[in-house]
Amino acid sequence: MTQKRYLIIGGVAGGMSAATRLRRLDENARITVLERGGHVSFANCGLPYYLGGVIEQRDSLLLQTPASLGSRFNLDVRVRTEAVSIDRDAKTVRVRDLTTGEETDEAYDALVLSPGATPVRPPLPGGERMLTLRDIDDVDAAMAELTVAPNSALVIGAGFIGLEMVENLVHRGLGVTLVELGDQVLPPLDPEMAGPVADRLRAAGVDVRLGTQVTELGPDTATLSDGSVVSAEFVLASIGVRPDTSLAKGAGLAIGERGGIRVDDQLRTSDPHIYAIGDAVEKTDAISGEQRLVALAGLANRHGRLVADAITGKTIRVRDALGTAVVGVMGLTIAATGWNEKLLRRIGRDIRVFHTHPASHTGYYPGAESMSLKLVVDAVTDEILGAQGVGGDGVDKRIDVIATAIAGGITASELADLELAYAPQYSSAKDPVNMLGYVALNAADGLTPSIQWHELEAELDAGATLVDVRTAGEHADGAIPGSINIPLDEIRSRTDELPEGRLIVHCKVGQRGHTGVRLLAQLGREAVNLDGGYLTWSAGTRASSAVPALVA
Amino acid sequence: MTQKRYLIIGGVAGGMSAATRLRRLDENARITVLERGGHVSFANCGLPYYLGGVIEQRDSLLLQTPASLGSRFNLDVRVRTEAVSIDRDAKTVRVRDLTTGEETDEAYDALVLSPGATPVRPPLPGGERMLTLRDIDDVDAAMAELTVAPNSALVIGAGFIGLEMVENLVHRGLGVTLVELGDQVLPPLDPEMAGPVADRLRAAGVDVRLGTQVTELGPDTATLSDGSVVSAEFVLASIGVRPDTSLAKGAGLAIGERGGIRVDDQLRTSDPHIYAIGDAVEKTDAISGEQRLVALAGLANRHGRLVADAITGKTIRVRDALGTAVVGVMGLTIAATGWNEKLLRRIGRDIRVFHTHPASHTGYYPGAESMSLKLVVDAVTDEILGAQGVGGDGVDKRIDVIATAIAGGITASELADLELAYAPQYSSAKDPVNMLGYVALNAADGLTPSIQWHELEAELDAGATLVDVRTAGEHADGAIPGSINIPLDEIRSRTDELPEGRLIVHCKVGQRGHTGVRLLAQLGREAVNLDGGYLTWSAGTRASSAVPALVA
Repeated sequence: MTQKRYLIIGGVAGGMSAATRLRRLDENARITVLERGGHVSFANCGLPYYLGGVIEQRDSLLLQTPASLGSRFNLDVRVRTEAVSIDRDAKTVRVRDLTTGEETDEAYDALVLSPGATPVRPPLPGGERMLTLRDIDDVDAAMAELTVAPNSALVIGAGFIGLEMVENLVHRGLGVTLVELGDQVLPPLDPEMAGPVADRLRAAGVDVRLGTQVTELGPDTATLSDGSVVSAEFVLASIGVRPDTSLAKGAGLAIGERGGIRVDDQLRTSDPHIYAIGDAVEKTDAISGEQRLVALAGLANRHGRLVADAITGKTIRVRDALGTAVVGVMGLTIAATGWNEKLLRRIGRDIRVFHTHPASHTGYYPGAESMSLKLVVDAVTDEILGAQGVGGDGVDKRIDVIATAIAGGITASELADLELAYAPQYSSAKDPVNMLGYVALNAADGLTPSIQWHELEAELDAGATLVDVRTAGEHADGAIPGSINIPLDEIRSRTDELPEGRLIVHCKVGQRGHTGVRLLAQLGREAVNLDGGYLTWSAGTRASSAVPALVA
Repeated sequence: MTQKRYLIIGGVAGGMSAATRLRRLDENARITVLERGGHVSFANCGLPYYLGGVIEQRDSLLLQTPASLGSRFNLDVRVRTEAVSIDRDAKTVRVRDLTTGEETDEAYDALVLSPGATPVRPPLPGGERMLTLRDIDDVDAAMAELTVAPNSALVIGAGFIGLEMVENLVHRGLGVTLVELGDQVLPPLDPEMAGPVADRLRAAGVDVRLGTQVTELGPDTATLSDGSVVSAEFVLASIGVRPDTSLAKGAGLAIGERGGIRVDDQLRTSDPHIYAIGDAVEKTDAISGEQRLVALAGLANRHGRLVADAITGKTIRVRDALGTAVVGVMGLTIAATGWNEKLLRRIGRDIRVFHTHPASHTGYYPGAESMSLKLVVDAVTDEILGAQGVGGDGVDKRIDVIATAIAGGITASELADLELAYAPQYSSAKDPVNMLGYVALNAADGLTPSIQWHELEAELDAGATLVDVRTAGEHADGAIPGSINIPLDEIRSRTDELPEGRLIVHCKVGQRGHTGVRLLAQLGREAVNLDGGYLTWSAGTRASSAVPALVA
């Protein structure tokens, strides 16, 4: 058997998964990995935490070395080595040693492109000193700046990585300004879910500037689009990444309409001898079926393994991408999977939306933490389209369960049936995921119709009456303007106080509201529940500049 | 419309879920709940923690009162009221007020039996002073004994509740003896998974006596079947529960072969006007399709709601029971779903078994805790039949994800494809559940055949060679007798040291073993991996009296 030559461009996540899997499948092959940076298989998701001092040793980030990979997997791993161009006819790659400048040609039978994505740098006057975070070289540069102990930092972009950097810079003791062009932090979330995250950042002393841009960087300041000038000795941009497609484009490989390398269902590019994986590649979205860019380590690793199977002759099945993600910010856990309400309303999908505010475990066992969950559901099929969670302990668990339910084709109503592990310190007899199912069931059965927080104003303008069924004490502590207060336990005896016409019922989280709606409906009244209750309404209206995005 | 009369026997979990749901569905009905005990809707899963002082206030256990349920749901809730007999022809229940002794008849259109299950009391000389734990009266009696500050306690039965009681008695400062008839703690687990739990109990000072019975109780001692006498001022029996079917039997309702009330797929007993739910009722097992007794709060609550839907005219779908459960013991979390290896081998099912020992999150982020996971899979269909987890943080999350995967019909190999939320403090880019999928894939594809820890001895007797591919240091710290040590990174250059014939490869957890098997197989050797590595083997052999149960 002739020796196969496998060449892999990019030695992180997907690339290295492909290389090690190829070795396990083909002991005889010649496997070469080229990495432009100085390190392979490093912990890129750990970089912010090393800068923050949470991860103390730089060595902790270096999971493997070319030498360790050589001895265990017999791989030829070359760092500081760039793939300059591909000769597809000759099946060779022009390779440059970045240390010596020497160029050679490497032949391949199969080539795997795993170049990743490049952080986008906003074009700014004075922007040269702005840092980005992609690899160990970047983290070394950032650490060098942090070691001279600046007092102030500016983070541009409030996505997942941006917020991780904010947390870590605060942890180091810097005064941090966070500037975000959009009107909320964490764009993958809906505004009423993201609002509490911004609140938490502000409570931690972060100067959060939404709907704002940086217009210019001075030597240790930044000028913002509102004209203000903030102190900014350390500046990090985290506004997103762009697929690194230069090599693919140079070789004339097909690029998709989202700007990523296009691959088929066997992870092959438009050249059948060239495969591509990871952040540079477009994926098929699990909800819409359309092409999408998803930069997630889990998918890169998974596809790295799959591509090795495909190269060695197996027919693989690449699952469509759901885009499940999680981030920790100042003690909050924020996780999401699938699509959000904003995007679904934008494309006109007929959806139902549910908010709950459960505890991580039973209230009677000490230490329960609160969370907010959101489920977005196809109004016709009851299919789960997405979920979001924000809160303390157990948010990641619930989003993982829902992501698994989506993968298994479990509908929103069927979440009620899931048998999840219960003991008082772990969950409730009805787990928060079960409760979402119950709420979805009540909606699907038409038992308790509901409206969203951003629909309330129009309802009240149209003449509906808002009934707060919380206690008088809760009402006094904070109420929605225009509501009348009749506690749930008194409704039966006080129905004569309710005006004619449509009633919007609300409580704190939606549960008493549901009971109130059922009661009123059976008394012949037209009643709907304010989904998520006072908590969701107040989180949403505090982030009120975002209402137009939701009111289609 | 005439007013319907709904009568519910049993006011905890399922019964109260049925009553409140009935009210939400029928504002007009007369709904009566009869409870023999002094309290309804109490937190029965919290009882051990109140005894341990973790839950400080007794009131915390009392989630609702007859008064609060009356005002909110217009329910007629009567405690210390016993249903004595049912007149099915007249559709009445004979009711006794346990305080006054007075008896009356209550008519019903639909009757719901939710009587629960009775703790089994082992018949023992001197056993009158033995306590059991079912309701608030029991907890009051136990607390009265604990308040006089005994020094020693005996817990009979090492199931989930038994271990919760042990933990809480230790927490109170008592010296605890745990006596279990079986040869392991936590019978729903397999021995190599339960072994570390017994180790942890012993490390916490608990005197764990397996394969042992109590033969007699003295005033403050107990005599055990091995002849020893232990101090036992406080004695609690927790050897299981028996469905409370006395009322159903008296009424001539059908009882299933497992001894529970038999219901149809609409939760109806053999009398179409009488429904039954909760621990007294047999459920259909999700794996075997057979009838089974499952005493879990989640199912009771779920079926309470469903029965209300059925009574009010909806066709319900009752999901088969998986039996997902979790317990916390001395800082360990132990969770399981579906069937275990013992039971599946006993019925001769063709299965594949996988053990892994992952960390709760990335090793480079501080605070990762280790866990052991076990997956049991149908060898023909790749269907997931069960899973078990023991360890620190995140065990409950992984078992919940797998329980959801089972519900969604996701196969073992497809666990590799799940998109689970990843950031370094929550998981790994390949989550432990994904890793189980990868291991299952490698087995399904025939890439890495494996054997179980309990099969090793027979393999070695038949002449196979055991190769430890860990480092020399790991080998020196503890090795399986008879193994030869060739570290994985040296195998390529030391193949001449391997004897002829079949090779069993092992490492610490199974991952290096997998790479070693792949390497050797491609060099033309017959090689199999010792599943779960040294950790699973040593946990299993320490619990070695249980090997016969697994070796069919």
